[in-house]
Amino acid sequence: MRGAVIHAPGDVRLETVDDARILKPTDAVIRTAVTCVCGSDLWPYRGAEPTDAPHPMGHEYVGFVEEAGSEVTSVKPGQFVVGSFATSDDTCANCRNGFQSSCLNVEFMSTCQAEYVRIPNAQGTLVATDGVPGEELWPSLLAVSDVMGTGWWAAEAAEVEPGSTAVVVGDGAVGLCGVIAAKEFGAERIIAMSRHEPRQKLAREFGATDIVTERGEEGVARIKELTGGIGADSVLECVGTAQAMRQALHSTRPGGSVGFVGVPHEVAVDGQELFFSHVGLRGGPAPVRRYLPDLIDRVMTGRIDPGKVFDLTLPLEQVAEGYRAMDERRAVKTLLKP
Amino acid sequence: MRGAVIHAPGDVRLETVDDARILKPTDAVIRTAVTCVCGSDLWPYRGAEPTDAPHPMGHEYVGFVEEAGSEVTSVKPGQFVVGSFATSDDTCANCRNGFQSSCLNVEFMSTCQAEYVRIPNAQGTLVATDGVPGEELWPSLLAVSDVMGTGWWAAEAAEVEPGSTAVVVGDGAVGLCGVIAAKEFGAERIIAMSRHEPRQKLAREFGATDIVTERGEEGVARIKELTGGIGADSVLECVGTAQAMRQALHSTRPGGSVGFVGVPHEVAVDGQELFFSHVGLRGGPAPVRRYLPDLIDRVMTGRIDPGKVFDLTLPLEQVAEGYRAMDERRAVKTLLKP
Repeated sequence: MRGAVIHAPGDVRLETVDDARILKPTDAVIRTAVTCVCGSDLWPYRGAEPTDAPHPMGHEYVGFVEEAGSEVTSVKPGQFVVGSFATSDDTCANCRNGFQSSCLNVEFMSTCQAEYVRIPNAQGTLVATDGVPGEELWPSLLAVSDVMGTGWWAAEAAEVEPGSTAVVVGDGAVGLCGVIAAKEFGAERIIAMSRHEPRQKLAREFGATDIVTERGEEGVARIKELTGGIGADSVLECVGTAQAMRQALHSTRPGGSVGFVGVPHEVAVDGQELFFSHVGLRGGPAPVRRYLPDLIDRVMTGRIDPGKVFDLTLPLEQVAEGYRAMDERRAVKTLLKP
Repeated sequence: MRGAVIHAPGDVRLETVDDARILKPTDAVIRTAVTCVCGSDLWPYRGAEPTDAPHPMGHEYVGFVEEAGSEVTSVKPGQFVVGSFATSDDTCANCRNGFQSSCLNVEFMSTCQAEYVRIPNAQGTLVATDGVPGEELWPSLLAVSDVMGTGWWAAEAAEVEPGSTAVVVGDGAVGLCGVIAAKEFGAERIIAMSRHEPRQKLAREFGATDIVTERGEEGVARIKELTGGIGADSVLECVGTAQAMRQALHSTRPGGSVGFVGVPHEVAVDGQELFFSHVGLRGGPAPVRRYLPDLIDRVMTGRIDPGKVFDLTLPLEQVAEGYRAMDERRAVKTLLKP
């Protein structure tokens, strides 16, 4: 079968790779309906994470069950399924506590930009839709498997409440989905920090009430102006850099919360500064599995449409161009069709 | 009047100081009923914080209103009052949000180990008791003004819930009050980390169900053993050192929370480690003012007795010995009687 392989920074190729197959009785294999490129895929693509040896790429997927291992009874061949980038058994203590992305048997997906994908922990991980959804819904269901689930988690971790003010730092696909989540959580005012016009437009479409184009301490000052001088109730940090984290912490009011969902790169938080800020901080890989039934339902009923974050659709053959377009910020997020 | 003054590390003296008096119409002056020495007073006493010039000490107090400024209508001379170490106007946005220790007009108390004390922001800060409480209640009411309020905040910030498992790091007065708070919040299992027998005994009296004497990674391993391998739901970090913070973060289960209430000294939290832990982190100076009516009521009705943390009572004249006894760990906390 064909799958994307990264060889070095800037060098992603579609190649013939080993066929996806059942390795354990708890596995399933799916035929990929659509897959995509994630903002976090750009870390190795840009050399910010090392690539010691060529390896497959991709952790987002929706597809049709091709084969289910002997211990997988929750889904069956032919069904259309959505899963999380973090597979989980859905039975361990952490799963029962709702933190399936810290499952004691977690295996992170990494081979999804391919025609077929092996899904470990399939029983706990995959959720079948009610019938096969129309193709027009595939992008949004694909978004649910990662960026929409991650935006949802950002809003939960930032403790967004009805009537509150939420700020979203980062206008990538996750940040934009964070705007959707903040709106669904009932935030009255949603301030998106973005300096890119097409992204500002999408943020507004998703529910942003204000746009702040300034960054760093200027951006913080602008947020303070908009929030009676004290800062926002909730800030969704959807980037992962030290600057974004600083901006998020400084934009939050005393007693407010920051949810951080971009994998932090060289971020350290000063204990004394956090202490005197009274700001709560929680992050991590989104427990997408917990949200799947609810988010699938919101997509299927047309309540949310996170698939709009895909502004470039390419055949899987052009995966290299898909990375390039995102790296050069010509695209927010690339959808790939096998 | 007489008041304690620190001149250098290890050198606290009772001296004649300027009389406490009304400086602003929003001030009150109280005659101190009882005051005490705080664990945080030991930072400058031990030279961990600089003492550039001699200055008064103490931020815990209960007493009788001696005089109220012209804008203070909520309390009147003769009343017995409890206040917070952080004064607050109780009207600004942060106060209305329940974070009075981040009041936009906050003034931290620092002159309370004295016969009389000026209280800024008296209107918002002081809460009068219903009649003058018996002297036997004064220590517990004094504890409410800081250590009990701080333990309460630790439990709130650590999101202690009924039926949960809470760990308390630190067996000083705040940690011991954290045990009281965890019990009042309904924790089913309360694990106190302590290696001092008298403190273990008091922790058990306050509601601790388990004692862990190991520290550092050994202590963490023991907590994991006691919590099905995943860690505790809530951890109250009541110390403020890098070691204590590490111990707290590592003892918490994915999705659990750390409340940190010891002023952090050289503590930095690694963003990526916090991210993958799924642990929530919130701290700060306790918003004691928010808790005062409730905590005063719990003391007056005999439901809680945090005054037991005082295991040494001295006349104010012997303030120096009060510091020494705590520094040498001969006393958990010293009560001072003017």
